[in-house]
Amino acid sequence: MISKNQLKLIHSLEQKKQRKKTGLFLVQGEKNVAELFNSDFVIKHIFATAAYINKNSTLLRDKGVINLIIEATDDELKKAGTLVSNNSVLAIVECKTTELPVIRGNELILVLDQVGDPGNLGTIIRVADWYGIEHIVCSPDCADFYNPKVIAASMGSFARVNISHADLTAYLSMQTKPIYGAFLAGQDIHQAELANSAFIVMGSESHGISANVEKLITDKITIPSFGQAESLNVAMATGIILDNFKR
Amino acid sequence: MISKNQLKLIHSLEQKKQRKKTGLFLVQGEKNVAELFNSDFVIKHIFATAAYINKNSTLLRDKGVINLIIEATDDELKKAGTLVSNNSVLAIVECKTTELPVIRGNELILVLDQVGDPGNLGTIIRVADWYGIEHIVCSPDCADFYNPKVIAASMGSFARVNISHADLTAYLSMQTKPIYGAFLAGQDIHQAELANSAFIVMGSESHGISANVEKLITDKITIPSFGQAESLNVAMATGIILDNFKR
Repeated sequence: MISKNQLKLIHSLEQKKQRKKTGLFLVQGEKNVAELFNSDFVIKHIFATAAYINKNSTLLRDKGVINLIIEATDDELKKAGTLVSNNSVLAIVECKTTELPVIRGNELILVLDQVGDPGNLGTIIRVADWYGIEHIVCSPDCADFYNPKVIAASMGSFARVNISHADLTAYLSMQTKPIYGAFLAGQDIHQAELANSAFIVMGSESHGISANVEKLITDKITIPSFGQAESLNVAMATGIILDNFKR
Repeated sequence: MISKNQLKLIHSLEQKKQRKKTGLFLVQGEKNVAELFNSDFVIKHIFATAAYINKNSTLLRDKGVINLIIEATDDELKKAGTLVSNNSVLAIVECKTTELPVIRGNELILVLDQVGDPGNLGTIIRVADWYGIEHIVCSPDCADFYNPKVIAASMGSFARVNISHADLTAYLSMQTKPIYGAFLAGQDIHQAELANSAFIVMGSESHGISANVEKLITDKITIPSFGQAESLNVAMATGIILDNFKR
């Protein structure tokens, strides 16, 4: 059973302020919780239905988390969680403090400027994971990594990709490797020579890359258009650009 | 002012059944309505705020639609529409009957099998428009093209890309050009020779391409993975595959 205080805590974690205060966040749904078990995230509690516990009992025992389980009904979990479906399990997890990444030999680091939509950030984390990106650096006004919508949209990839929030001009001005930026009028990525170790900066759909960050871009790049759509969604553009860097 | 009957009609058009019955659908928001004016869609009514009408009066006169305008308040439009924001204008538009496309010399036609999520379909229409795709053929169980969420997510591209719903096995079995299909274990698209005139079949995220359609695929292709994400969102995968075909 989920106690009144636990329910209050769970609901409070929908808010960034409360996540900051408590250092906790929510992970919901079978797939996302399964990825938690393979990560170094510290789990505080797992609320799950009897059906989930039965189905996953070996896994829960193997991962040493069986003692964190609190059994709850479907109905309780539905009321507690923020998802429309996929309510068989919900975990309360400790936030990590992530240090700003130092770029390695042949690493690509993704940098997001003002990507405010949580669904977009989650989708970017998922496609970044597909292309083997290990670090994403976000401007402070990006969606919060620990927002339940970000975690949900990442489809488990939140557990593998390290996200830090930082002042981008301070971070990028220390770098010596190429800093690519996606613009509507840059060099065609189908033609450009793309480095195998670099920073790739993506701006928000509505505002693009901010002026201070633009000054630090060494290579402006563009996805060529063959039709009449004015722009691409930022998550889509990120996936297409990563595919070009990785070919 | 929006009359009671008009409001009832607008709300009814959120349902596929009512759209079929009336042959009408909704287009909401300034960007999507502006694209309507450049298309061959027949507009029945435009409900708009005084602010929108003032701002766009020249355009509305030039496009010959000023007589279709019914002025409404912000509040009325908010109650009538399905969008959270961007409520300054809402149009009632006639559905088109689209014939199944006959593939041209160097055309790529996109084929969607069971893509049920309206947001995904809208995003696919937008990225298809970016890459100059003119025709998308959808299985009958794809999201309905005229669903307000599809129109919204297409960001205006609904007005340029022709969508038909058809039995895919019947349609594809008549074709002589290559039929590519996206699978998790096909040929690496970074290595494959991709034809400049072909059909590209994308399956649903949960079920993939259905068995009957799979039999008609001539070339199985895959987006290579460099990390650990298990899959990509179908809209993302479509965008990346189109980029590879167009390079």
